[in-house]
Amino acid sequence: MRGHNMNAEKIPDIIIGRLPVYLRALQRMADNGLKTTSSQELGEHVGISAAQIRKDISQFGEFGKQGTGYSIAYLLDKLREILKVDRKWDVVLVGAGDMGHALANYQGFANRGFHIVMIFDNDKEKVGQKIDQFTVEDTEKMIERVKAAGVKIAMLTVPAAAAQSVTDKLMQAGVKAFLNYAPISLNMPNNVKVQYIDPATHLQRMTYYL
Amino acid sequence: MRGHNMNAEKIPDIIIGRLPVYLRALQRMADNGLKTTSSQELGEHVGISAAQIRKDISQFGEFGKQGTGYSIAYLLDKLREILKVDRKWDVVLVGAGDMGHALANYQGFANRGFHIVMIFDNDKEKVGQKIDQFTVEDTEKMIERVKAAGVKIAMLTVPAAAAQSVTDKLMQAGVKAFLNYAPISLNMPNNVKVQYIDPATHLQRMTYYL
Repeated sequence: MRGHNMNAEKIPDIIIGRLPVYLRALQRMADNGLKTTSSQELGEHVGISAAQIRKDISQFGEFGKQGTGYSIAYLLDKLREILKVDRKWDVVLVGAGDMGHALANYQGFANRGFHIVMIFDNDKEKVGQKIDQFTVEDTEKMIERVKAAGVKIAMLTVPAAAAQSVTDKLMQAGVKAFLNYAPISLNMPNNVKVQYIDPATHLQRMTYYL
Repeated sequence: MRGHNMNAEKIPDIIIGRLPVYLRALQRMADNGLKTTSSQELGEHVGISAAQIRKDISQFGEFGKQGTGYSIAYLLDKLREILKVDRKWDVVLVGAGDMGHALANYQGFANRGFHIVMIFDNDKEKVGQKIDQFTVEDTEKMIERVKAAGVKIAMLTVPAAAAQSVTDKLMQAGVKAFLNYAPISLNMPNNVKVQYIDPATHLQRMTYYL
């Protein structure tokens, strides 16, 4: 456990950030029936140089063979193991608005390592509503419920004004990783992770080319 | 025009991809009343090394002064100009489901260079519905309407099965950049850009640390 954590410190976060992108591209290749790939081919799919991909992957050991490239199935297994998505993570969703509904119904979690287990909202009109197989629960019971279930990952689709207080409660309940859809920056200690989903950033990445 | 395109070819896409992240972090600093920053400070905000940030920014000219760091306002202006978000881009939204509603109501576009101008759906039950100030239009009229308005950017929140055919129609109408929420990879020529919003990839980036 300690060894794992020390290892985590040594690999730059920017490399960790690219691994899920490689994983997704490799999964698409596998779905299309491909068995092997090269750093060149993978690079064309993800828009990252072949040299960078070889360097990133070599951080974790020797996966490729000179001349024959990477076995896609082997690399998929290894990346899932490294990213710890070779298991299923429980996720709590807070905010049962449009975005919350969209995420509750999203089909892309189950086969990528994630499983929504609870949905909360502070709006009494929404509490008790059914979304997919879930019943929206009252945020008043959130700390207790999340702590008891040992959930470590949360997705926030609450209004910006509520995001920090919800985050504070979830951290109190033991949540260590947040995916934040609210258009606001969250304050949290260094041992808690946050990722932002921000459509404007993605659009700005494309306007350069228009 | 040609000069601009040639320039675009030379700067690696991976650098272009980081600029909106710098822009967002700098905007937050400005909102918090900061006037200047350093590559170290900016790096801590975005999780990228100071050396990388200096290298990225220097691709576009000399913005920082030795010792005094970067003027946030100046860097914001320059980044907006480079990314071409110093203007307002019209955006078409296709898919009036939960995610479409969430995006139509999203407050983070207007001050970042984007403006939704039309919403389409092929579901006759949804056509004519009001979302915010918009009336959902029939996708049957999409090609004609988008072409006439000269819209170059689309956001897709349609089911995976419909995403490619909607994309083909929008390309026919002149759209050159797609933000795709559908959990499917799109086929398009090299001169058309696509970005994917994929919550599972963001979650996978954090599980490594858990």
